[in-house]
Amino acid sequence: MGKSQFIAQTKFAWACLVIQVVVGILFFLLVRYDDSADATHTPNRLGHNGHNEKLQEAIEKYPMIVDIHMMLFAGFGFLMTFLKRYGFSAIGFTMMITVLVTEWAILVQGFLHMDDHFTIKISYIHILEGGLAAAAVLISFGAVLGKLNPLQLITMCLIEGALFVLNAYLGYIVLGAVDVGGAIFIHTFGAYFGLAVSLMARKRDVAKSERREGSTATTDLFAMLGTVILWVYWPSFNAVLASHDALHRAYINTYISLIASTMITFVVSAFFGEGKRLDMVDIQNATLSGGVAVGAIADLMINPYGAFLAGTLVGLVSSLGYRILQGKLFDKLKLHDTCGVHNLHGLPGFLSGIFSIMAVGLASEDSYGPSLYSMFPRCAPVEGSDEMKRLLRELPSLEPGEGRPISVQAMIQLACLGVTVILAIVMGLMTGLVLNIDSIFHPLNDEELYDDIHYWALPDEEDDTHGVPSQKGGQPKSDSSSFDLDPIGVPGTHNAVYPSKQIV
Amino acid sequence: MGKSQFIAQTKFAWACLVIQVVVGILFFLLVRYDDSADATHTPNRLGHNGHNEKLQEAIEKYPMIVDIHMMLFAGFGFLMTFLKRYGFSAIGFTMMITVLVTEWAILVQGFLHMDDHFTIKISYIHILEGGLAAAAVLISFGAVLGKLNPLQLITMCLIEGALFVLNAYLGYIVLGAVDVGGAIFIHTFGAYFGLAVSLMARKRDVAKSERREGSTATTDLFAMLGTVILWVYWPSFNAVLASHDALHRAYINTYISLIASTMITFVVSAFFGEGKRLDMVDIQNATLSGGVAVGAIADLMINPYGAFLAGTLVGLVSSLGYRILQGKLFDKLKLHDTCGVHNLHGLPGFLSGIFSIMAVGLASEDSYGPSLYSMFPRCAPVEGSDEMKRLLRELPSLEPGEGRPISVQAMIQLACLGVTVILAIVMGLMTGLVLNIDSIFHPLNDEELYDDIHYWALPDEEDDTHGVPSQKGGQPKSDSSSFDLDPIGVPGTHNAVYPSKQIV
Amino acid sequence: MGKSQFIAQTKFAWACLVIQVVVGILFFLLVRYDDSADATHTPNRLGHNGHNEKLQEAIEKYPMIVDIHMMLFAGFGFLMTFLKRYGFSAIGFTMMITVLVTEWAILVQGFLHMDDHFTIKISYIHILEGGLAAAAVLISFGAVLGKLNPLQLITMCLIEGALFVLNAYLGYIVLGAVDVGGAIFIHTFGAYFGLAVSLMARKRDVAKSERREGSTATTDLFAMLGTVILWVYWPSFNAVLASHDALHRAYINTYISLIASTMITFVVSAFFGEGKRLDMVDIQNATLSGGVAVGAIADLMINPYGAFLAGTLVGLVSSLGYRILQGKLFDKLKLHDTCGVHNLHGLPGFLSGIFSIMAVGLASEDSYGPSLYSMFPRCAPVEGSDEMKRLLRELPSLEPGEGRPISVQAMIQLACLGVTVILAIVMGLMTGLVLNIDSIFHPLNDEELYDDIHYWALPDEEDDTHGVPSQKGGQPKSDSSSFDLDPIGVPGTHNAVYPSKQIV
Repeated sequence: MGKSQFIAQTKFAWACLVIQVVVGILFFLLVRYDDSADATHTPNRLGHNGHNEKLQEAIEKYPMIVDIHMMLFAGFGFLMTFLKRYGFSAIGFTMMITVLVTEWAILVQGFLHMDDHFTIKISYIHILEGGLAAAAVLISFGAVLGKLNPLQLITMCLIEGALFVLNAYLGYIVLGAVDVGGAIFIHTFGAYFGLAVSLMARKRDVAKSERREGSTATTDLFAMLGTVILWVYWPSFNAVLASHDALHRAYINTYISLIASTMITFVVSAFFGEGKRLDMVDIQNATLSGGVAVGAIADLMINPYGAFLAGTLVGLVSSLGYRILQGKLFDKLKLHDTCGVHNLHGLPGFLSGIFSIMAVGLASEDSYGPSLYSMFPRCAPVEGSDEMKRLLRELPSLEPGEGRPISVQAMIQLACLGVTVILAIVMGLMTGLVLNIDSIFHPLNDEELYDDIHYWALPDEEDDTHGVPSQKGGQPKSDSSSFDLDPIGVPGTHNAVYPSKQIV
Repeated sequence: MGKSQFIAQTKFAWACLVIQVVVGILFFLLVRYDDSADATHTPNRLGHNGHNEKLQEAIEKYPMIVDIHMMLFAGFGFLMTFLKRYGFSAIGFTMMITVLVTEWAILVQGFLHMDDHFTIKISYIHILEGGLAAAAVLISFGAVLGKLNPLQLITMCLIEGALFVLNAYLGYIVLGAVDVGGAIFIHTFGAYFGLAVSLMARKRDVAKSERREGSTATTDLFAMLGTVILWVYWPSFNAVLASHDALHRAYINTYISLIASTMITFVVSAFFGEGKRLDMVDIQNATLSGGVAVGAIADLMINPYGAFLAGTLVGLVSSLGYRILQGKLFDKLKLHDTCGVHNLHGLPGFLSGIFSIMAVGLASEDSYGPSLYSMFPRCAPVEGSDEMKRLLRELPSLEPGEGRPISVQAMIQLACLGVTVILAIVMGLMTGLVLNIDSIFHPLNDEELYDDIHYWALPDEEDDTHGVPSQKGGQPKSDSSSFDLDPIGVPGTHNAVYPSKQIV
Repeated sequence: MGKSQFIAQTKFAWACLVIQVVVGILFFLLVRYDDSADATHTPNRLGHNGHNEKLQEAIEKYPMIVDIHMMLFAGFGFLMTFLKRYGFSAIGFTMMITVLVTEWAILVQGFLHMDDHFTIKISYIHILEGGLAAAAVLISFGAVLGKLNPLQLITMCLIEGALFVLNAYLGYIVLGAVDVGGAIFIHTFGAYFGLAVSLMARKRDVAKSERREGSTATTDLFAMLGTVILWVYWPSFNAVLASHDALHRAYINTYISLIASTMITFVVSAFFGEGKRLDMVDIQNATLSGGVAVGAIADLMINPYGAFLAGTLVGLVSSLGYRILQGKLFDKLKLHDTCGVHNLHGLPGFLSGIFSIMAVGLASEDSYGPSLYSMFPRCAPVEGSDEMKRLLRELPSLEPGEGRPISVQAMIQLACLGVTVILAIVMGLMTGLVLNIDSIFHPLNDEELYDDIHYWALPDEEDDTHGVPSQKGGQPKSDSSSFDLDPIGVPGTHNAVYPSKQIV
């Protein structure tokens, strides 16, 4: 490890400590239970769950929220362990990013919704929403995987986490956009932010580290575990914010779209693979693009064939992206995208946003009945209007809205997509610029990328033969001195994932 | 890779493309949302979920359906990664089989249930049922693991998927058999179909590839991940089609049966292991046989000790099957069963079918009360009979049936078991015959089995030393020319799972 | 394998067989379905689930119970696969312990609650409770990992499983302690019992085996899978026994406490790591201590900041425990703790018990309203008292209690914590003494620890080169003679996790 990473790690430790103290103080001063988790709120108790709608919601959504947490920690985490020598960082920093962004987003969101008593009332739904912010940052993490040190990562967490909350607030609350699965606000935002950071972080010659930028048979299987977890739980991700028939539609549409993107990925991977061989990169990633494809439209009346078409188109774009576009972006723009998040989240999220403009523009009472105005609440007629009275006869639970025309709602979708892309790119570039300040962040050299050795005490793989065991507990595992450089390529150690001689 | 596999892969890519287009067109022409997912169906909206029974069912079953999807993708998938050089295929083709069979089974089932308007209305329950068809095909995949190429696999998916739906329709709908966990229609069918394919696919000398037919410590741990996922989620698999107390019984019976099969597997594995050592093959597989054991009877009043007994007996048969029977079947019949599905699915499923004949034959109002006729709806008295009137006083929600005697119901179970075994074997043999046509399917040579190298661009494990990195993204990972043969056994590469020199 | 382990394995196989038969007979004689799973119990059928509260409970809790089962099998199981040559035992014996303790605890608990007809009526909640007993034994397993043979392990299961049930019965039922997540009765009990067994099992020189007491990059990733599963499902573990707003609070408090312990673990690991490098041991374990930290108080009105503070403090103690305390305990007391359960379960569980004394002592109607007496049922006023009448006006569902003062309830918490620690240590020492009897249990020699080779037929990793394949099915995998010793350290095999020459 070079000396500069030693300093960066020291700063990282102090920064985490300061964050812990500050967050603790803010929790103490501001954060309280939502009524639905408050023992003094007697409606929670007067019989069964049904009596308190918010409590019922938290309990009913809980299994889906657990699925989503599993996507964050294990889905994203293991998907990124494919790099042969960056597995500890992939899974470890995924954990760190998720918890840090969750607590931070809860606070930032709380500031925006703060009541007169200056308290932030949290339910499990807020913890879910914190996790959605973490999803965006984890997507960005995929773009910069192996290229930022932990100090840079937590800084990115704080900046991007806050921006995510602001952008989502603007889109969902202020403008009333629909994006049930976060294709625009999570995937598109996270991808372009991360890509911009990657572009700016430094004028890299990543080729100097590319001997480490590969996988092994074992790390590819760990990555497939991440893929499978993301695939299976994706319907929960897209549906968790929906209810009633819209919830059911979100399950169905997401599953069908995933089926379509998976099959088309096999087609593309076989057609374009050298010797018609499939590529694990495609199967690990592009198969999932169907989940993003319907992110913004999963709860809409797009029909099963609409979901199939969306999954097919986006799966095609995504798998061709891995095969063609990614190389071109690197050659032309020096835009390096370690996990290919542009292909799995950026383009698919953007396309899903486009689909949402179309799906909203085509929405009518013909296809939705009176629940059109439940799906697009701002489009519901104003209170007391004749139109509203008519609708209430058909759907008594309907809430009045502001009479926004459907065409305006479609324009709102377009506006949110545009704002999200621009905000993500501009702020990502600025963040990348900041993270590049040598004296503060000690960015990695081009030779140091994709390597756990800077941040992790690695197991000594030759224990068996020379009898110097690594130990759990009291002693650190490696007897390395701290500042040695990383002598990759010692002959005779080529089969070990972490050749033991590297840990001198 | 030999030239013939290159051609087979080209055909495979085209076939998948054609399937994608055809399925897309059929979805466009025929498939629509079920009322419970349709926004125009106002009962979905008039308050909470309870107002629409089918919507409520989809939402309540959703967590169990997710569990089952996890069993398909990760449970079956990782269980089959045990082969040291076939892990990418195991997990990748599991994904492909699951999505292909799911979409195909939805369509075939839809044809059988099509309404007057020629539309197929789907809810998440239909997606679940597509997944159950996929389970049967994945079981067959276990029997032929490593021996069929992807072109053969997707052909098997189409044939077996359609036959599964027909057989299940005959059994559940036409004949009214009970088989809540699919022991007969999923496990028995899938196992014997796969075994028949394996028997016929070619007169093999698998010994020529047996150097690859083993595991490593790492792949055995990945396989255990599959085992654990299947074990833990199995109660969801057996219970998902049940409700009320029958649902609760299915949970309990499945768990107890799994406990019993797990413990007896440890007994058998220790007793018969060389040096009394346990064998991972037993622990990975036979422990699960208790889930199959009660598959056909999980919701019946078999008592906890009945579940314990079933799990013990079947666990005994299964673990002895791995130890003794499998070798004999190979020696005598040249029946090669890569994952031993005969021991985990075939025999246990068959035994569970036998148990169901007994459990049904012994069923009476003494042990079930009036809900006997909810469990066996065809046995309920006909509408308007005095018997029915008496029962309605005790159980107002009871539906009238056709007055079928319990003994006839038991015979129906026997008939379905027989039909399933015969259909599976006959059609499996025919399928195997078809898949063996050289000019169409290019079956693998005996020397080519159990090897990812034909279908996957493999990571180059020596990156570290010679500085030629594999790359995510634009370029394919291997610089191999396509038609080289596979020179296994290059000295000095023996510790790598995929020796890099093989990818010349 | 030494001859003594061969004999121990033979005894193990016989013991498991006897257990299977005895448990089967006891199930046959005593165990029946609870009414909520009984078809003759018509309230289960009269419409939807809501009509039978216990059935509704089993069905609603089911997803959380599945989460907990996944924690047991895959969470604990994979977390313990970190040892480079004990992975099969870690995951395999975890499975065995879980099923054995579950069936045994169901019976022992049944004896305590047996009704007049000498029947044990079980629902899925009882299966859950059996799993909680298994959790305690799995924690103990962590302390002795690699040091006990299977015969010793199943003996420990029977002794500890029964003691766990008795201690929990004393605490929850007789004394009326509150410990919703089992910090006292599961974590503290399991940890100190296991540590006592480890201390007594023999006067060890574990250094003789310490070359095997390390991890590899791959086994550390498998362990992280266990960590992530435990992390994500922990809210289910702490909340499964709660309901209404208390359930919701248990989710929130557990998640926040986990966030806090995770971040502080990164702080400690970076600060104290050599070269400021993080240690996988910390990240795999101490991050989880927040789940234990609120185990006894997760459903109480501790406020979000209380959960944050508890997680931070316990995370600090836990991660420092791994860094400092564990080494000292070994040096001073020769207390060897393979997985560091003292740091993850012992100290955190004890601290959570202390927190529960404080949280209970501070509880009042101010902070809980009338539901104070639902949270602490013994503290509810006696039936017919004026106090009770007043409360019933506010909370009609309240049950009368025994008018226990809150301060007494706090003392009960203290008493239970003390009894648990003392009972665990004393009985653990006695158990360790028993397990050390050479003629019965054949304990491992100091040179034989942490090695799968005694119990498992290991894959032959050199298959590729010499063409002697391991085989699934008929034949055992190794051609080793049974009594050979284990020649670790053969030159040239250092990169294989299991060098093939060891299996001579």
